[in-house]
Amino acid sequence: MAARRAYLDYNASAPLLPAARAAMLAALDADANPSSVHSEGRAARRLIEEARRSIAVLVNARAEHVVFTSGATEAASTLLTPNWQMGRSAARMARLYVCAADHPCILGGGRFTPAQVETIGVDGEGIVDVNALRAALQRHDPSGGLPLVAMHFANNETGVIQPVREIGALVKAAGGVLVLDAVQAAGRIPVDMTEGYVDFLIISSHKIGGPKGAGAIIGAADLLMPKPLVTGGGQEKGHRAGTENPAAIAGFGAAAREAAAAPGEMEAVRGRRNAIEAAVLAQIPDAEIFGRSAERLPNTTFFGIPGMKAETLQIAFDLGGIALSAGSACSSGKVGPSHVLKAMGRGDNEGALRVSIGRATTDEDIGLFAAALAAIVVRRAGKPQAA
Amino acid sequence: MAARRAYLDYNASAPLLPAARAAMLAALDADANPSSVHSEGRAARRLIEEARRSIAVLVNARAEHVVFTSGATEAASTLLTPNWQMGRSAARMARLYVCAADHPCILGGGRFTPAQVETIGVDGEGIVDVNALRAALQRHDPSGGLPLVAMHFANNETGVIQPVREIGALVKAAGGVLVLDAVQAAGRIPVDMTEGYVDFLIISSHKIGGPKGAGAIIGAADLLMPKPLVTGGGQEKGHRAGTENPAAIAGFGAAAREAAAAPGEMEAVRGRRNAIEAAVLAQIPDAEIFGRSAERLPNTTFFGIPGMKAETLQIAFDLGGIALSAGSACSSGKVGPSHVLKAMGRGDNEGALRVSIGRATTDEDIGLFAAALAAIVVRRAGKPQAA
Repeated sequence: MAARRAYLDYNASAPLLPAARAAMLAALDADANPSSVHSEGRAARRLIEEARRSIAVLVNARAEHVVFTSGATEAASTLLTPNWQMGRSAARMARLYVCAADHPCILGGGRFTPAQVETIGVDGEGIVDVNALRAALQRHDPSGGLPLVAMHFANNETGVIQPVREIGALVKAAGGVLVLDAVQAAGRIPVDMTEGYVDFLIISSHKIGGPKGAGAIIGAADLLMPKPLVTGGGQEKGHRAGTENPAAIAGFGAAAREAAAAPGEMEAVRGRRNAIEAAVLAQIPDAEIFGRSAERLPNTTFFGIPGMKAETLQIAFDLGGIALSAGSACSSGKVGPSHVLKAMGRGDNEGALRVSIGRATTDEDIGLFAAALAAIVVRRAGKPQAA
Repeated sequence: MAARRAYLDYNASAPLLPAARAAMLAALDADANPSSVHSEGRAARRLIEEARRSIAVLVNARAEHVVFTSGATEAASTLLTPNWQMGRSAARMARLYVCAADHPCILGGGRFTPAQVETIGVDGEGIVDVNALRAALQRHDPSGGLPLVAMHFANNETGVIQPVREIGALVKAAGGVLVLDAVQAAGRIPVDMTEGYVDFLIISSHKIGGPKGAGAIIGAADLLMPKPLVTGGGQEKGHRAGTENPAAIAGFGAAAREAAAAPGEMEAVRGRRNAIEAAVLAQIPDAEIFGRSAERLPNTTFFGIPGMKAETLQIAFDLGGIALSAGSACSSGKVGPSHVLKAMGRGDNEGALRVSIGRATTDEDIGLFAAALAAIVVRRAGKPQAA
């Protein structure tokens, strides 16, 4: 297809930043095993440690508390376990508390049995029910272990930002551990681990403009750590075995540097997101923007067009040159009703479209979106399509 | 360092093949989420499925039985579990039988408790004690579940090839499941899943000239599968969650195509490996080549130089422009006594050097190695070093 397309699906995967690509290419030339002690191995090691520092800076953490994984899902599977270690002693988490609007990799509960997982609901805007969380933590029986709370920082579908400081205070009061899935938040809104509300963050390279194949667990400390998931080698101080991926990690680091360098640019992103929403509401006055009255990420909008199925709309947009998402892209080719909307109390049949953008999104992209939407609106009205 | 160096550490990580690099670069431009249903997502999906077919061809398996992981260690952690599923029913492996000369990611036992793991010894050449394995399987109590046997196909330090058909027959007779760590074997010696001796292979991209960050579990079938390790998304038919890494997977596929296309080239590799061994024995008549009378990979030699510590030698070679390994590179900067040599009945203090090469290794590389060795021999004799 030669026509200009607009990629508006950053929350599924952000386009690779030129700086991240360049860092990857340089790392591909230093392609020894970073655990090898020869010069080639040590060069690969340096790339990893430089990236570790850059990722720590992005969220104001300490580099030695960054553990690289192959991605955010592996990070979640690692952290969501009853079995932890405090130094060399075993520690135990008795129950896991998650949020109904979490990503499937949190909702699934990782290594907990389903009976050990309690799901906290959200309100109509998608904000976690803090009173329900407080009550659940008050009911928690500490004799079997600590409570582990894992939630999204910002929602991947609606962009709604959770009250993480309030959640953090509750978890701290209960003597628990808080894991925040900051995959969509990092690089888009300030995330500062020195504020002390969170114990572990999960972040993903390819959601901030780095390559796929890298993610990180970032701890506020490193004494209490989950029992490793991937085992059989001493890499990452024993927290994650397997040869590291210097190219993906170097690209991740470069993307983190770019995100940390220009936080102010997100205001321009917010302006374009608002322009998208204005175009939707101008053309479809009965469209609903979900979570609109909550605090949201600047780059995300999630809206429903009454009387039209999201899947149909998604295909129409794709044919019209616009890549956007109907629900999230969390499994192979699957498009189903959004569990996020369901948690927000919307009917199963209510489809919705997610538009998610980034620093590289242009006014031209917004124009292409508005034009594609207009063509769909004409068809929706049953009129012949304009030539 | 401007001087020409020779990289002779392919078993730690093989240099990225130009074809694999080109495939990666092309994939970086198709950087959407392969689970997205828009055109960009489907393009990323196609790259993955093309690579899946190429990897299946390399070991004569079916593409639909290839499950991508982030690497071989993750693949091992996934397969080495007591908890399996036969379709939707639970299945159980009661014990794990491994080999004392396995890679740490097998020896560690994955998700089995240490009490569930039984280690089978090797002889002085590093060949697994088949009689001990037979006896162990005869002792196996099937009431608690099937026996799971996991071993290396070829050793990463010595290159010694295990009698996999004999092992496979024993495991089949015991009604068990055989996992072969073919990380070092694939692409170097014929591996053909249609022969029927193995249930699951583990292979790694970066050991065959692909990029780091990709590995695979290859099954002879897909009805009996391990309970997933990385969970929370439907990718890889539910066997491995998390956004796939199309660039690494595409590079993996390109490397597999290259390895499958020219199996005869390994005879030239064998010739150069033999030249290395001839140079070692000519200069150091009392050097010992480990596993030399066993069948070995054509690219690997592992030898000890009496009276010299392997770590010292490794550093001397590195300064002399030669990247090789003292033991394996399986954890961050760690160089310790080889557990493989120990299993072969050698003393703890006996160091050894591993030289491992590939199709791109040249006669010039061999010459550089021989020259560096000569300089070390001169110093060993206590004579002043030649200028």
